[in-house]
Amino acid sequence: MTTWDSLYANRAARMRASEIRELLKLLDKPDVISFAGGIPDPKLFPADAFKEAYASILGSNEAERALQYGVSEGSPRLRSWIMDHMKSLGVPCSEDNILITSGSQQGLDYIGKLFLSAGDTALVQWPTYLGAIQAFNSYEPSFDRLDPGANREASDYQLRASEAGGSVKFAYLSPDFANPTGQSLTLDERQRILALANELSCAVIEDAPYQSMRYDGDPVAPVLALDCATSGGIEKSRTLYCGSFSKSLSPGLRLGWICAAREVIARLVLIKQASDLNTPVLNQEAMAQVAETVFEAHTANSRAVYKSRRDAMLAALENHMPAGVRWTRPEGGMFIWVELPDGIDAADLLEKSVEAAKVAFVPGRAFHADGTGANTMRLSFSCADHEKIEKGVSRLGRLIAETVTSKL
Amino acid sequence: MTTWDSLYANRAARMRASEIRELLKLLDKPDVISFAGGIPDPKLFPADAFKEAYASILGSNEAERALQYGVSEGSPRLRSWIMDHMKSLGVPCSEDNILITSGSQQGLDYIGKLFLSAGDTALVQWPTYLGAIQAFNSYEPSFDRLDPGANREASDYQLRASEAGGSVKFAYLSPDFANPTGQSLTLDERQRILALANELSCAVIEDAPYQSMRYDGDPVAPVLALDCATSGGIEKSRTLYCGSFSKSLSPGLRLGWICAAREVIARLVLIKQASDLNTPVLNQEAMAQVAETVFEAHTANSRAVYKSRRDAMLAALENHMPAGVRWTRPEGGMFIWVELPDGIDAADLLEKSVEAAKVAFVPGRAFHADGTGANTMRLSFSCADHEKIEKGVSRLGRLIAETVTSKL
Repeated sequence: MTTWDSLYANRAARMRASEIRELLKLLDKPDVISFAGGIPDPKLFPADAFKEAYASILGSNEAERALQYGVSEGSPRLRSWIMDHMKSLGVPCSEDNILITSGSQQGLDYIGKLFLSAGDTALVQWPTYLGAIQAFNSYEPSFDRLDPGANREASDYQLRASEAGGSVKFAYLSPDFANPTGQSLTLDERQRILALANELSCAVIEDAPYQSMRYDGDPVAPVLALDCATSGGIEKSRTLYCGSFSKSLSPGLRLGWICAAREVIARLVLIKQASDLNTPVLNQEAMAQVAETVFEAHTANSRAVYKSRRDAMLAALENHMPAGVRWTRPEGGMFIWVELPDGIDAADLLEKSVEAAKVAFVPGRAFHADGTGANTMRLSFSCADHEKIEKGVSRLGRLIAETVTSKL
Repeated sequence: MTTWDSLYANRAARMRASEIRELLKLLDKPDVISFAGGIPDPKLFPADAFKEAYASILGSNEAERALQYGVSEGSPRLRSWIMDHMKSLGVPCSEDNILITSGSQQGLDYIGKLFLSAGDTALVQWPTYLGAIQAFNSYEPSFDRLDPGANREASDYQLRASEAGGSVKFAYLSPDFANPTGQSLTLDERQRILALANELSCAVIEDAPYQSMRYDGDPVAPVLALDCATSGGIEKSRTLYCGSFSKSLSPGLRLGWICAAREVIARLVLIKQASDLNTPVLNQEAMAQVAETVFEAHTANSRAVYKSRRDAMLAALENHMPAGVRWTRPEGGMFIWVELPDGIDAADLLEKSVEAAKVAFVPGRAFHADGTGANTMRLSFSCADHEKIEKGVSRLGRLIAETVTSKL
């Protein structure tokens, strides 16, 4: 059997390993200070609360049900908690507006499956979350650039989509402390994207895994909340909100959700049924118990820790970066996005950085669907303590200064 | 937003709710004896072993890792157990030949995603597992009939596939105690399907969720084991084996696997990464611990229980079914397949049966891709005790006898 390639579907040609995941394997060395991984600090997980939850479920008469097949929509108890959570964010909804997914990544895959035929267009920002591109790529779309700041006409998007052989199916955005830039969309930008989607008659995909990680600044309403307010309720909204417990409580249970009009949720339930039947009931029940008991206190505690790390990294950047380097000042999340002076390639820099300075980060080009962004990098402050942040940024600043000087 | 239909991908037209899942909701009444559900008996789950496993992982320094993101391939410990298990079935392999999936249903979805472009052909048996049809339907294939008993030429399959706009990508089969018929493929039939796949240069998908549920008769080697033996090893095999813990230990953790050539596993890992990043590490570690400690003893115990229920149902059928009714005598699994005399429609019968006889089953037409099979039904003996089996089959026999008489 030496002919596998000829048996694969067309879409297989677009499936590539995440450069970042591959990179992270190389960077995982004990003597390297890493700002590369985009993961929450495992020391912050509420392990005791999870231990208690699993013990109480498996020790009760709930055990048989928790270990059996479950409904594709998800556990009523967890959907009910999420419903209240969404209401607290300004989204009036019922349990029927919520589908439990195995992480928000699965939500993105299902959304691609529901909307994208080969040649259809998905609008995404430059740079954007790489995992979304990977999820959508399985359905062979074209990508066009969604730029909340630019005044591109809807007709221009439509023309380009039609040239690509389909139509614009959705605009994908991550409005709060986005991966990789850490930046948020203003209220005005959110409204403009909704207006554009209205003109295009397309859906809006709001990817909100970092929503609960705001450290300062005023909260901005989710796009779905704005949509409900202007369209007359969730059943008339065009926005699908993808939520996640991965950054707030634990990514290990792989639990997220989609909140949207019932009609869309019903379609997504069929996709869930055909693709993995249901998300594990045991995990959903455990997460419901943990969310009910510690969500508020736990996320408040995590926010305090991450805020101080963000502050430490911003201060270190201020102190150690040479002139000509710019960076974002995110109000939440896990990432700071750094722009180096033109002509400096962050991928080249990484090699020297890991060898000589013993500091790791993610070069930014991978996040750009068009191959630009060579002079950008993503720094994550989520897993490093203050000492490592100060030491790592200081070494990185020195290396960048040397690199800039050598290019003069 | 009233135009969702126009936004959906072409494939959405083929996504329908499982008639059986919908049916099961209606049949779930306390006074009805149900032979309908195709699920394992929850009273047999090793709940204590799972309780102990979760407690020990979450109470140790493993907790942080178990609650964090994990590798897409799956947990090394669980893959290692599965590798040994596959070796015990006659499949020489390494951990690199194994991908952990969220149930074997997810394996079928990924296989559809990897191989099927719209218009390609998947060969399936009539009747076949409905969940496989649903999983593959997302990728818009044509289905053609795989009949291990018929002598159809490879060229005939190829011609038909080419007329449908693609080529034959794989033959899908469930060789042991298949859902819905309970029947197994003989060694000769397995060899013939492999030979056909060789001629067609296509893959073979071996769906084996019931493999560990043999109650009597001699074990027959998995198709993958036969393929390895004739082709010269797993790296040269064309067979993908889908395994599952759902029937042997618990379906609630949603854990299955695909065992195949490394090259194919590497492709499937990319699909896993893009679709849900990884299966929960915590569940994989817990399952590894439970499998290592109780798999042999637990499955032996379950087999004894299910065997006695199968025997009870076969005896009751013998005692209570009128002449002209035929049924399979499965050597394992959970299902007996019943053929009623021509002209009796099992869907019509079900209505009367639930109303008057208070017995539920699944009419067989849903399992036939071509809409035939109106006079067939699936009976499951997995969740009913001897008393219910005797009482239920006796009532059903009486109803069928009356129905036959009224048609004379």
